[in-house]
Amino acid sequence: MWGGKALLLSLYGTCIFLSATGQDPADSIFIRKIFDIALENLESYTWLKELCSIAPKRLSNYADYFKAVAWAEEKGLKWMGLTVERQPVWVPNWYRGNPEVALLEVSGRTFPLNAAALGGSAAGHVRASVVGFATLEALELAPTSLVQGKIVFINQGFDPHPVETGTSYGMAVGSRRNGPAVAARKGALACLIRSMTHARDDYPHTGMTVFPDSVTPIPALALGMVSADTLWAVIKSQKEHTLFIETFCRQGPDTLSFNVVGEWKGKEKPGEFIVVGGHLDAWDTGSGAHDDGAGCIHAMMALRLLQKAGYTPRRTLRFVLFANEENGLRGAEVYYKLSYQRGEVHVAALESDAGGFTPRGFRYENNPTRAALLQDFLPLLMPYGISFFRPGGSGADLIPFRKETDCLLLGYSPDSQRYFDHHHAATDTPEHVHPRELELGSACIAALIYLLDKYLP
Amino acid sequence: MWGGKALLLSLYGTCIFLSATGQDPADSIFIRKIFDIALENLESYTWLKELCSIAPKRLSNYADYFKAVAWAEEKGLKWMGLTVERQPVWVPNWYRGNPEVALLEVSGRTFPLNAAALGGSAAGHVRASVVGFATLEALELAPTSLVQGKIVFINQGFDPHPVETGTSYGMAVGSRRNGPAVAARKGALACLIRSMTHARDDYPHTGMTVFPDSVTPIPALALGMVSADTLWAVIKSQKEHTLFIETFCRQGPDTLSFNVVGEWKGKEKPGEFIVVGGHLDAWDTGSGAHDDGAGCIHAMMALRLLQKAGYTPRRTLRFVLFANEENGLRGAEVYYKLSYQRGEVHVAALESDAGGFTPRGFRYENNPTRAALLQDFLPLLMPYGISFFRPGGSGADLIPFRKETDCLLLGYSPDSQRYFDHHHAATDTPEHVHPRELELGSACIAALIYLLDKYLP
Repeated sequence: MWGGKALLLSLYGTCIFLSATGQDPADSIFIRKIFDIALENLESYTWLKELCSIAPKRLSNYADYFKAVAWAEEKGLKWMGLTVERQPVWVPNWYRGNPEVALLEVSGRTFPLNAAALGGSAAGHVRASVVGFATLEALELAPTSLVQGKIVFINQGFDPHPVETGTSYGMAVGSRRNGPAVAARKGALACLIRSMTHARDDYPHTGMTVFPDSVTPIPALALGMVSADTLWAVIKSQKEHTLFIETFCRQGPDTLSFNVVGEWKGKEKPGEFIVVGGHLDAWDTGSGAHDDGAGCIHAMMALRLLQKAGYTPRRTLRFVLFANEENGLRGAEVYYKLSYQRGEVHVAALESDAGGFTPRGFRYENNPTRAALLQDFLPLLMPYGISFFRPGGSGADLIPFRKETDCLLLGYSPDSQRYFDHHHAATDTPEHVHPRELELGSACIAALIYLLDKYLP
Repeated sequence: MWGGKALLLSLYGTCIFLSATGQDPADSIFIRKIFDIALENLESYTWLKELCSIAPKRLSNYADYFKAVAWAEEKGLKWMGLTVERQPVWVPNWYRGNPEVALLEVSGRTFPLNAAALGGSAAGHVRASVVGFATLEALELAPTSLVQGKIVFINQGFDPHPVETGTSYGMAVGSRRNGPAVAARKGALACLIRSMTHARDDYPHTGMTVFPDSVTPIPALALGMVSADTLWAVIKSQKEHTLFIETFCRQGPDTLSFNVVGEWKGKEKPGEFIVVGGHLDAWDTGSGAHDDGAGCIHAMMALRLLQKAGYTPRRTLRFVLFANEENGLRGAEVYYKLSYQRGEVHVAALESDAGGFTPRGFRYENNPTRAALLQDFLPLLMPYGISFFRPGGSGADLIPFRKETDCLLLGYSPDSQRYFDHHHAATDTPEHVHPRELELGSACIAALIYLLDKYLP
């Protein structure tokens, strides 16, 4: 589509592609317009700060979540003039309660450890010695007698070798997700894990742990990295020690929450949909700035930038802010079920759930034929930092969309180096988001939505 | 060289390229080895913190600079086992002296402004009203009568539109470089400029300003962004006001400084050289972590990683830490002159002077034939974040190398979004460098040096 001999005009150090053989020069001009509007206003960061200050603790069952819903509705309705829908979703009802306590007693001294209960953790107070395992696998292989009546600590760190930090996360996260249940099955009184991060600070990184129905939940906590190193050193020293843990979590019956969906009706094919989404819920340790405040802002701002640039969509464009990605994925199921009942057809769906960092590329799945088209978009997006479309996962909230085999699924893939420094931790706050990096993400997604709407068959 | 059908093996989420048609599979395996060593140890960050704590204020004539020289020599000699040379360089001898003062008096109140003298500024104390100009061009066009006896303020900010922040810098930096001399020529008593940054904080960003011999220097200062906005608002209000400025700069006769050059003799062609460099001097506002501590570490660590990976160089590899990039480029001239006198041939020279951020690509100049080869390297470096080799400037210290038309000149080009947030400001400290991002830069440069040494004709 953009083949042939190209004439390059330099504008602001980027390029405008003009070609005599098939490419529409309007594309690069319109995309430059999107970026101009974006970079002049840096509105994404203003919106992100609003969301994170109005509703910092927004697990989908928390009071703050409903403030986030109201905020998103107002932005969608009043600022963007969209039709906005609130979709009821029944979500798990876990609360952290009071801050958790972890005190390590060794050689007559007490060392407080920085810990955060994992989502799904039971409440409890436990005083016991700790048995340590380097990996989840080592715990799985351990005899019950070694674990029974003890506190388990799984010190499985991030592998430093992968360039993409998400790869290290994928390799290690089983210890958080499944470790506490394995420990509970073997009779452990509580389970601690090393946080899922490359960071060397002492902020614990929470996240979901899963206790199957057959297992009675126990207190389960993540330790900051310094605390994890301390505890590991004590265990390795074989010195006598005791760990006191107290968690105050509560688990109630499922409760009502909401997806927020904003809709911009298409002119030519209003019955075909392009979805751009993020998840509105976030862990309660920080204020969910990168995970996934950034993704929500990307989704909303992508449509807003297209509006401001004077675009008229062919298909119906929707931003979807999913409830409960962090501990249930219930919002995604509800959105998709409602959409299916209405007989809607999705031609593409994109999620941003990898942070608000500098643009790198997009990952895609589900429809190889449509995906082939993406490579033709590259020359138009390269001046803005997009250097690849690669196969791979799109986004957790897009899993239900896989049933629609025609639908192209995409995930925004910004630079990954800093993401897990903040992910699910107290430092996931707007100060760690860079206004221009965030804005470039919004504009890259807006540009891609424009190209998909125009060129997808 | 890497054409033909490629078999992809996934390792740590990256790819090993194996091909039946001409490519040497040893390359991707060796490059992966470099990155493994780098990411396991994150030694670059440790070295950077050392440099910035031992010698934070290291303009090439400052006392700290000689501590930096000693540190670099020790690293080169003892840690890397290289032959290390100290090259004498006569450098300008400007000192900031005591911290500068800028007090804005308006409506009976005094507002302190955050200011930093520019390199080359005169000492002085001035009390006068301020005349403001939106651009350097507006100042150039102004009648002398408007400026005489006043303090000039040039409020020329960064253009928000360019994606690459270096483009905005290039567009605006004339106001810092030439503005004070233009103001002095028109009879101004002092000159202030808006800092060269996209940041919205109030740290002033210093840098070099040039007073030609025909112009008597005046006090010249950069203002932080909040201070600049404040001053601009007062000027626009047309309210009566006075600005008091005091600077304590000293300028002495040229003084002795040094380049530090570490050499690793090549086995096959010891008379051919590949240079990898950064500049050891830095502005005295922060500790020169990104500019250009990162570049020095990149250069040294690139050779160290090749050593640790067991490499035997064909050509002679040199790290060159140039003196006086910031206010004279004298180190580069001396290095090149000495090298020319010895009849040395450079096949390639690379400078890292754009910060320690996440890798993006390399820019090249000077030898189109050799540059063509670079595109063949791309598939080997893409798994590590290198997505382009683009024509463009290499590095200020490589300007003298342009005389050698066979020499390929390269500049490391990491992500630019955050660079000018810290450039020449108090926040250019190791806390704003990310250990993995810095290390990936060292490893990318090591990998490129390996490929250049192997494949350059």
